[in-house]
Amino acid sequence: MAPTKKVCVVGSGNWGSTIAKIIGNNALEHPELFNREVLMWVFEELIDGEKLTEIINTKHQNVKYLPGIDLPTNVIAVPDLTEATKEADILVFVVPHQFVHRLCNQIKHLVKPDCIAVTLIKGFEVAEGGGIHLISEVIRGELKIPCAVLMGANIANEVAHENYCEATIGCKNPEVGSLLKTLFQTAYFRIVVVEDETTVEICGALKNIVAVGAGFADGLGYGDNTKAAVIRLGLMEIVKFCEVFYPGARQGTFLESCGIADLVTTCYGGRNRRVAEAFAKTGKSIDVLEAEMLNGQQLQGPATAYEVYFMLQNKKMEDRFPLFTAIYRICKGEKPVADFIDCLKSHPEHM
Amino acid sequence: MAPTKKVCVVGSGNWGSTIAKIIGNNALEHPELFNREVLMWVFEELIDGEKLTEIINTKHQNVKYLPGIDLPTNVIAVPDLTEATKEADILVFVVPHQFVHRLCNQIKHLVKPDCIAVTLIKGFEVAEGGGIHLISEVIRGELKIPCAVLMGANIANEVAHENYCEATIGCKNPEVGSLLKTLFQTAYFRIVVVEDETTVEICGALKNIVAVGAGFADGLGYGDNTKAAVIRLGLMEIVKFCEVFYPGARQGTFLESCGIADLVTTCYGGRNRRVAEAFAKTGKSIDVLEAEMLNGQQLQGPATAYEVYFMLQNKKMEDRFPLFTAIYRICKGEKPVADFIDCLKSHPEHM
Repeated sequence: MAPTKKVCVVGSGNWGSTIAKIIGNNALEHPELFNREVLMWVFEELIDGEKLTEIINTKHQNVKYLPGIDLPTNVIAVPDLTEATKEADILVFVVPHQFVHRLCNQIKHLVKPDCIAVTLIKGFEVAEGGGIHLISEVIRGELKIPCAVLMGANIANEVAHENYCEATIGCKNPEVGSLLKTLFQTAYFRIVVVEDETTVEICGALKNIVAVGAGFADGLGYGDNTKAAVIRLGLMEIVKFCEVFYPGARQGTFLESCGIADLVTTCYGGRNRRVAEAFAKTGKSIDVLEAEMLNGQQLQGPATAYEVYFMLQNKKMEDRFPLFTAIYRICKGEKPVADFIDCLKSHPEHM
Repeated sequence: MAPTKKVCVVGSGNWGSTIAKIIGNNALEHPELFNREVLMWVFEELIDGEKLTEIINTKHQNVKYLPGIDLPTNVIAVPDLTEATKEADILVFVVPHQFVHRLCNQIKHLVKPDCIAVTLIKGFEVAEGGGIHLISEVIRGELKIPCAVLMGANIANEVAHENYCEATIGCKNPEVGSLLKTLFQTAYFRIVVVEDETTVEICGALKNIVAVGAGFADGLGYGDNTKAAVIRLGLMEIVKFCEVFYPGARQGTFLESCGIADLVTTCYGGRNRRVAEAFAKTGKSIDVLEAEMLNGQQLQGPATAYEVYFMLQNKKMEDRFPLFTAIYRICKGEKPVADFIDCLKSHPEHM
């Protein structure tokens, strides 16, 4: 009998704790496949003088980032990154994207050579000199191990409350994909595995740009037809972006949860839409709105629009991506938001 | 020089009048292609003692079905169906689906043999003995001419007010498709032509079933994740329905306005969603809600669900379409709406 896999969740925020709950339960369900103990690396902090890891390991709740949700007792919080990861056969990355590089750097000398990674992180790393790196590329590059991705229309609190939803795993190796499906799927968290990892990941990052456009349409007072067109043209530009920069996407992947489902949810709910709507209505800058509405946190959509625009400009491709380009220019203040829909009037999709 | 094409719009409701406005303007824009006068068949009725056709032809407004919107003066209302259609080179059908058969029957002996038809009608005709006929099939069968389709996320009033949106034309013959694009496209009404007529039309009819499911999810208090999953699984069942009953669909067609855009708009706005939400919240029957909320008009989603279920049952395929099947059973009162999400827990998409 093959030895069971040791799983470590790297990250313990809202989404990380939610996924640790799922993985912990599935490890108990499948003792033939997974080690009973699931480690969760927790960035240590004090809560009313008590260590967060100790609270998690005694009360079995992440009282700071996922209060009210019981974690299975076999999820063990570990404050030391080396301790948490060195024995792992499966590393599940779910930290803010700006930390990935540094964390990988810290563990790259100890990760087992046959370990596999999965990233749940939405967003890109900005490349030196401009452009983007996918988070999975960073992980593969640093750790020299394969890296699958999991994305979907997954608001963490709804998943934590076991509301029915779907997610997509992108994994090149079908055997590994099947193992990961067993690790993540539950009766309420339904998984489809596809082979094109890259497409799954790109959908998760670019949707936030489109959500900014959907928010502009809302803020400008357009109705359902126009918003539907913005969302669809956004999807077409995501498809085109994959074709140009990461060729080989399967069209069916855009129909998965990581594609249209996540896109639609983000364009109807979500803070990128909300702030963009306020931008169109108030005329305040994105910086000001981030300060007012997000307590100074950076909004992902405009940031991603800047990174993507850099790539389009380098390739002189602004005309083929009029939606992405217009959103960049409007966020930058180079174009009035009132012109947003005009920018779509000669979209290449309609030529 | 080829003679210019005479266009007749068969129908003059909200959507028919809107599309006559577009076609009238485009006929003026393209005198090399289209006859200046665009005829619109109007079911004659009296408005304060005056004939609707006379009002349209003098005031250039359809005061009953599209008040406040000026029609181009070259759109001529004609009360006699024979007069309106006998010279036509292009017949644009936009009447309630239950009238198509009878209208076609009335004109089949006079339609020019090289005439082409376009249907903008969403919905099926119920076949004798159960199951469905596509409206385009009825038109082709009765008139013995080709029939293209135009569908999309197109709320008539928004289009009439020239808000930006998209539509999809499905047309097997690329040359005809290109002509139809010129007939329908404007700066605010953007057209993509695909060859896949049947798929375009099926998307337009089946979306209403999915919208009932989205309404159930809303009425049961589920959040964004679950609703996104319902919409996406609905799309997957539309794709599967095409595969089984109308094979040959291109996957890209589902990404067009007729596909995801119209589906999403219908699942967030639209009366099928609204009535289904009330159904889940109040426990009243669909019949009662139609009486209370729609002034006795029939809701299209449940009706289509019945027609489709008949076909699935005949082929013993209920298990492959658990969403459509659950919606049928819940509308019929055979299953409590509270069980809706449970019906999706072992969806074939996740096997």
